[in-house]
Amino acid sequence: MRTGRKLARGVAVVGAGMSRFGLFREKDSRDLFAEAFREMRESVDGGLDPREIDALYLGNFSNDYFAHQAHWAPIIADLTGLTPKPATRTEGACASSALAFREGVLAIASGLCDVVLVGGVEEMSRRTTEEIAEGLALATTPYAGKVGFTFPGVFGAVATAYFARYGAGREDLMNVTIKSHDNAPLNPKAQFPFTIRDLMTARGESLKQKGLAAPGWTSDKDFLRDPAVNPVVAWPLHLYDCCPISDGAAAMLLVAEEMAGAFTEDPIHVAGIGQGSGRGLHRSPDLTSFEATRHAAREAYAMSGLGPGDIQFCEVHDCFSIAEILHVEDLGFFRPGEGCRAIAEGATKLDGPKPINTSGGLKCKGHPVGATGISQLYEVWTQLRGKAGKRQISRGDLRVGGAHNLGGTGGTCTFTILERR
Amino acid sequence: MRTGRKLARGVAVVGAGMSRFGLFREKDSRDLFAEAFREMRESVDGGLDPREIDALYLGNFSNDYFAHQAHWAPIIADLTGLTPKPATRTEGACASSALAFREGVLAIASGLCDVVLVGGVEEMSRRTTEEIAEGLALATTPYAGKVGFTFPGVFGAVATAYFARYGAGREDLMNVTIKSHDNAPLNPKAQFPFTIRDLMTARGESLKQKGLAAPGWTSDKDFLRDPAVNPVVAWPLHLYDCCPISDGAAAMLLVAEEMAGAFTEDPIHVAGIGQGSGRGLHRSPDLTSFEATRHAAREAYAMSGLGPGDIQFCEVHDCFSIAEILHVEDLGFFRPGEGCRAIAEGATKLDGPKPINTSGGLKCKGHPVGATGISQLYEVWTQLRGKAGKRQISRGDLRVGGAHNLGGTGGTCTFTILERR
Repeated sequence: MRTGRKLARGVAVVGAGMSRFGLFREKDSRDLFAEAFREMRESVDGGLDPREIDALYLGNFSNDYFAHQAHWAPIIADLTGLTPKPATRTEGACASSALAFREGVLAIASGLCDVVLVGGVEEMSRRTTEEIAEGLALATTPYAGKVGFTFPGVFGAVATAYFARYGAGREDLMNVTIKSHDNAPLNPKAQFPFTIRDLMTARGESLKQKGLAAPGWTSDKDFLRDPAVNPVVAWPLHLYDCCPISDGAAAMLLVAEEMAGAFTEDPIHVAGIGQGSGRGLHRSPDLTSFEATRHAAREAYAMSGLGPGDIQFCEVHDCFSIAEILHVEDLGFFRPGEGCRAIAEGATKLDGPKPINTSGGLKCKGHPVGATGISQLYEVWTQLRGKAGKRQISRGDLRVGGAHNLGGTGGTCTFTILERR
Repeated sequence: MRTGRKLARGVAVVGAGMSRFGLFREKDSRDLFAEAFREMRESVDGGLDPREIDALYLGNFSNDYFAHQAHWAPIIADLTGLTPKPATRTEGACASSALAFREGVLAIASGLCDVVLVGGVEEMSRRTTEEIAEGLALATTPYAGKVGFTFPGVFGAVATAYFARYGAGREDLMNVTIKSHDNAPLNPKAQFPFTIRDLMTARGESLKQKGLAAPGWTSDKDFLRDPAVNPVVAWPLHLYDCCPISDGAAAMLLVAEEMAGAFTEDPIHVAGIGQGSGRGLHRSPDLTSFEATRHAAREAYAMSGLGPGDIQFCEVHDCFSIAEILHVEDLGFFRPGEGCRAIAEGATKLDGPKPINTSGGLKCKGHPVGATGISQLYEVWTQLRGKAGKRQISRGDLRVGGAHNLGGTGGTCTFTILERR
C-alpha cells in the first residue's frame, strides 16, 4: 500500500459510548455491550433508530476462551436490533476493536455502507487469574508462548532492554504509573479511580485500624518502592506497572462524512488510519521499539497529512508502564530514549504540552482487551468534543487527537487520528 | 445498507490456491497455509513478488481452541513475507474466510489497497473428536449451546422440520451424499475421493478378507441404509450426512479491477458480495430456511444485477446433507420444498442444469472450518477458468458461479458471485 493513500470517501464519528470498566461477574458480554450501545445512541443528536445502521463490526479477542462462547458478532447484532444485517468479528489480540473501527471505516469508504456500528467487548473476570494469563498468552507468538513467556515476562524483557540501552530505571516507570493514577479519578468509568496518594492514605488507615504503624511513606514513589505494596511481577515490572483484568465494552457510530450533519452538530472526522503487523520478540532486531507501531504511524500520518507535532494528545496502549514509554517514542512524539525524560518533566500530564492517556490508560481505566481499541477512540472523541468533564484538556484549540492500540507482543498495532474540523 | 449498492471500485481475483484437505497431524497452520500460498503464487501469470501485496485478511474460526495459539494474522503475515503490513483476522464461525474475502474486497474498493491477500486456515485434527465437538459448539448461540445442542443435533432438528413440512425423507438426504461422492474422486484435493460404489466395493473386500460374507448391497442407497455402515449420528442424520473434521488452508489474491491485466490474462471479477446475520434456532420462525442466507443472497443479487437463474453453478455450505437442500432453496435456485425433488431428478449433478458442489462439497472435499469459505471460491474460480480437470463443468459458456458459506447455526452467512467477463 502506498502511504499517503486517501480513502474514496470520508468517514466521521457521530456517536460513542462505553460501559464502566471493572470486574462485573454478574454481567455477560451482552449486558456490557448494551451499556455502551445505550450511551452511544443517546450521544447521537435526536437519538438513533437502529434500523439506520447498515452493518456491525465487533472486536473481541477470545470470548471463546474466556466465556466459552464464540461467534459473537451475530449475537451482538441480535442484541442491537440489526439482524439480518452483516455482522463481522475482527481479532488482533488486544487490538481487536481498533481493527473493527478500521473495517467499519473501509466499509463506508468502499461505498457499500453509509452507517456502521463498530464496537468491542471482552468478558474476563469469571475466569481465574491463572486461566486468564493462559488465555492471554495464546496471543503471544508461537515461539514466545512455547518457551513459557506470558505478557509480563515479555514486557519485563522489553523494560530491561530499554533500561540497558538508555540508562533508564524504575523511577521512569513510576512516573508513568503516577501520571495515569493522577488522571483516573477524573474519569467516572475508570476501574481504579484513585491517585497513588489516595491509595497511600487508604493503606495507612487500614494498617492503623489493625493497630499497626504505617511505614513512613513520604511520596508517591516512596509508596511504590515498598515491596509489601508493590511486589515484583516480572523484573523490573512490579504490580503497579501492570494493567488489570477487566470486563467492559465500547461502541461507536461511523457514517459517511457527507451525511454526518444528519446525526450530530459536532462530527469528529477520521483523518488517518494506520495498521502494522510485527513478528514478535524472537525476530525483533530491537526490543525497545515496535516495528508494527512505526508502520501504523507512518500510514496514519501520510493519510492525514499530519505529523507527530500535530497530535495534540493521545491515548496509547499502556498494558505495562514501559509500553507507554516505547509508544510515545515510536509515534514520533519524542526521540528514541528521550520519552522517559519528557515524561519525568511532566510533558505527558493532563496539563502538559502532550497529554497522554487522559482516561487513566489501560493501567487505571482498565483493559477488557476486545473493548480497549474503541474505548481509546471514545476518549479522543470525548476530549475533542470538550465533554471530558474534570479531565478535559484545558487548551482551547483542541483539534487533533490520536489513539494507539497494540495486540500481542506487537503482532498487531494501529494508530488512528481523529480531527475536529 | 440499500441493496443494489455498487462498490466505489471493482475488484478481481487474479490468483488462488488451496492445500490438500484431510487429516495432517504432522502439519501446523503455517505448513498448511504455505501450501495454499505457494499454489496461489504460481497461479499468477509470471509469478508474484510478495512485496506487491498491501495487506492480509485471514479467516480462522478458533485455532485459539484447536491449536492453543491465537492471533494468527501476524503469524501468517510473517510466513508470507508481508510484515510489517496490516494483517487482520476475521471470524464468523465456519464462514470466517468468506468474511476475509469480503473485507479484502472492501479494502480495495475503499481506495486504501490495490493488492490484497485473503485466506483461511484451520488446524483441527490434533484434538480429539470430543474436544472438536465442544470447540465447534462454541459457535452455536448461547441458547442452543447451553441446552446441549451440538451441530449434528441442530441440523437433525432442521431435517426433521423439513421432512415434516415438505414430506421429504432420508432418500432425499442420500441423493445429496451420493452426488457429492460422485464428484469427489474428480477433485485431487478432496479428503474422501471415493464414490459410494468405491466404498461399497472396498467394504465388501474387507469383509471377504475376514472370511465374512458381504451383505447383498445392490445400490448406493442400499449401502447407505445399512446401519453397520451408516449409523445414526443425530436422527435423522446418519454418518454419511455429516462432513468430516479436517485440516487445511486456502488463499486468493484480489486486486483492483483496473490492475488485473498486470497479474493475469484471465481475471475473474467479483460481481456481488452479500452477507447476513441470523439469530439462531431459538428465534427462527421457520427451521427450514436461514434468514441470513436469504439476506446475503438479496444483497449479492442486487449488487450484481444478476438473479438465481444467472448462477450457472454454485458451491454451498453442506456441513450436513440437509443443509445443501435448504441452501439451494434459500438462494432461489429452487422453490421452498422443491429442492429435494430437483436434486432427485439430477439437477445438481456435475452434468445437470445447476451443478452444486462440484468440488465434492464439505462432505467429501473436507471442512477445515476457517479455510472453507475461500476454498469454495477457489472451486468457483477454477471452474470459471476451465481448469477443473476431470470435474470441469462441460457447458461451453461458463461465466457466472456462486459460493455460499454458513457459520454457526446460520449466525453468519455469505453469498458471493464471481464472473468471467
